[in-house]
Amino acid sequence: MSNMYDHANNLAKSLKDSEEFGQLKEAYEQVMGNEDSKNLFGRFRETQLNLQEKQMEGVEITEEEVQTANKVVEEVQQDESISNLLDTEQHLNTTINELSQIITKPLEELYQETE
Amino acid sequence: MSNMYDHANNLAKSLKDSEEFGQLKEAYEQVMGNEDSKNLFGRFRETQLNLQEKQMEGVEITEEEVQTANKVVEEVQQDESISNLLDTEQHLNTTINELSQIITKPLEELYQETE
Repeated sequence: MSNMYDHANNLAKSLKDSEEFGQLKEAYEQVMGNEDSKNLFGRFRETQLNLQEKQMEGVEITEEEVQTANKVVEEVQQDESISNLLDTEQHLNTTINELSQIITKPLEELYQETE
Repeated sequence: MSNMYDHANNLAKSLKDSEEFGQLKEAYEQVMGNEDSKNLFGRFRETQLNLQEKQMEGVEITEEEVQTANKVVEEVQQDESISNLLDTEQHLNTTINELSQIITKPLEELYQETE
């Protein structure tokens, strides 16, 4: 048991020390250091979360909400520091997905072996 | 980079060697070793996946589908080996969620620190 948690902690540490995480941290701090970017990023996240929640709950998204979301995305695309942050986020997410697949491979193999 | 993947591989190995994984493997093989349980478990998974897909796509689930799903769940609850498998699955999922939280903690901390 403790072994798994030790390995998970080691992985967390190496993630934190990774170049990708450093890039994310830098990109995030750049956005947070500029009042306009910070506010726009806040609005962007709020809009995305709101739409995701509605989608998950099966609530219909209005035309107005779609337009608002599209406007925020347009603004975000014109903000270089936010665009850069989103790119580094995506990069790190890809890595984390790869790590997840490695970790849960034993489960996948089990479910395939006897099917 | 390679460091993270090494740690992920170590974690996967320790997961595979864990008592919880051993229990899951045993429970799974017990279900697969009985033709009736195996078929019922197959139907159960198919029904669950089907409902999940519809929910994610926002497709309405008919009353008939709900009834069919409920019937399968009832049958599953009466099959001791499948009930046992579902319990061990849930147990391992809880552990994997805990591990995931440990691994992604650096990200969570970053997003909190400057907010």
